[in-house]
Amino acid sequence: MADEIDDRLKKQLDFALEIDKEKNIFRQTHLSGHGRNENDAEHAWHMAIMAYILREYSNEEVDIAKVMLMCLIHDIVEIDAGDTYAYDDENLKTQKAREDAAKERIFSLLPEDQKKELVALFDEFEEFETPESKFAHAMDNLQPLMLNNSNDGGDWKEHGVSAAQVYGRQSKTALGSEKLFQVIDGIIKDNIQKGSIKE
Amino acid sequence: MADEIDDRLKKQLDFALEIDKEKNIFRQTHLSGHGRNENDAEHAWHMAIMAYILREYSNEEVDIAKVMLMCLIHDIVEIDAGDTYAYDDENLKTQKAREDAAKERIFSLLPEDQKKELVALFDEFEEFETPESKFAHAMDNLQPLMLNNSNDGGDWKEHGVSAAQVYGRQSKTALGSEKLFQVIDGIIKDNIQKGSIKE
Repeated sequence: MADEIDDRLKKQLDFALEIDKEKNIFRQTHLSGHGRNENDAEHAWHMAIMAYILREYSNEEVDIAKVMLMCLIHDIVEIDAGDTYAYDDENLKTQKAREDAAKERIFSLLPEDQKKELVALFDEFEEFETPESKFAHAMDNLQPLMLNNSNDGGDWKEHGVSAAQVYGRQSKTALGSEKLFQVIDGIIKDNIQKGSIKE
Repeated sequence: MADEIDDRLKKQLDFALEIDKEKNIFRQTHLSGHGRNENDAEHAWHMAIMAYILREYSNEEVDIAKVMLMCLIHDIVEIDAGDTYAYDDENLKTQKAREDAAKERIFSLLPEDQKKELVALFDEFEEFETPESKFAHAMDNLQPLMLNNSNDGGDWKEHGVSAAQVYGRQSKTALGSEKLFQVIDGIIKDNIQKGSIKE
């Protein structure tokens, strides 16, 4: 096939095939209906649609196409670096170095211009400064909380997570959406009351 | 929680939770690396990123945000209607009626304005008339073919699929992208030669 297509297209297709591996990276979150663990690709798909549906609650005006693309690619580095659970302090320490190496390897499969563009978008998400990044992070925090709440807080119970930890994880959600943080706050309080989150 | 959030937001969150079920709808396609069957949410995520990366090969100029959203939602109806395999003639006959009922039920969870918008986008995809729809369909056809090719055509072999069937499925791909249809045609010819697709 290499003869029939040019180098640029071949690189784009190599990247497209490589990211298939993100479907094998499983998270701590369980699907609704007390389902199996969720993987990163599903999580990203869910976040992108939620971002579109809920965009009216962003504190600031956002370029929603940019937010959606950010959501879709934000976990690609976990193909190499693995998923780091939000409450796993040991692995959180090495997360940045592992993800930087993965970012370089995976996005380098693309033609140079597209590598630069997607790395910049990935970095923008991580830096948490633009309205798009803040709103995408709000989705990254709301989506698993919504699933976990639908499962009676099973993931929190399994890991013995405390209210301080959950509020820590959600400490910047209101920067993206004050309205959605109110919803999240209500869900957390419910789950503390029910004993699913330790006080 | 119902007291704390307004009716509109509650509907949006109900929809967001409902579509989680798409992760349980499995397709005939297998993940690369001779992996498990792929589900609809993963397939949609993959298509949306591929659409973005490959947008330069669309025959016509497209609104890429619209293409991506189309990709993300195009299989939501399968939550109720199930996945209909592209070469399953019996189930293809009842597919439209099953998917229409599902479309009405699932999108009705949303506020009326968002229901209308997403149903219109879903219908636009199905109608295969706009540049966005044609390019999204090219992704819907390229993505599983790429995975299947990476697995030595295992899905074609398993179902004893013929060249006529594969070309039938791909008959409109060139309407979205002549360039990508050339790639697809090369892959099909390779797989016929290798015996993975029956002549």
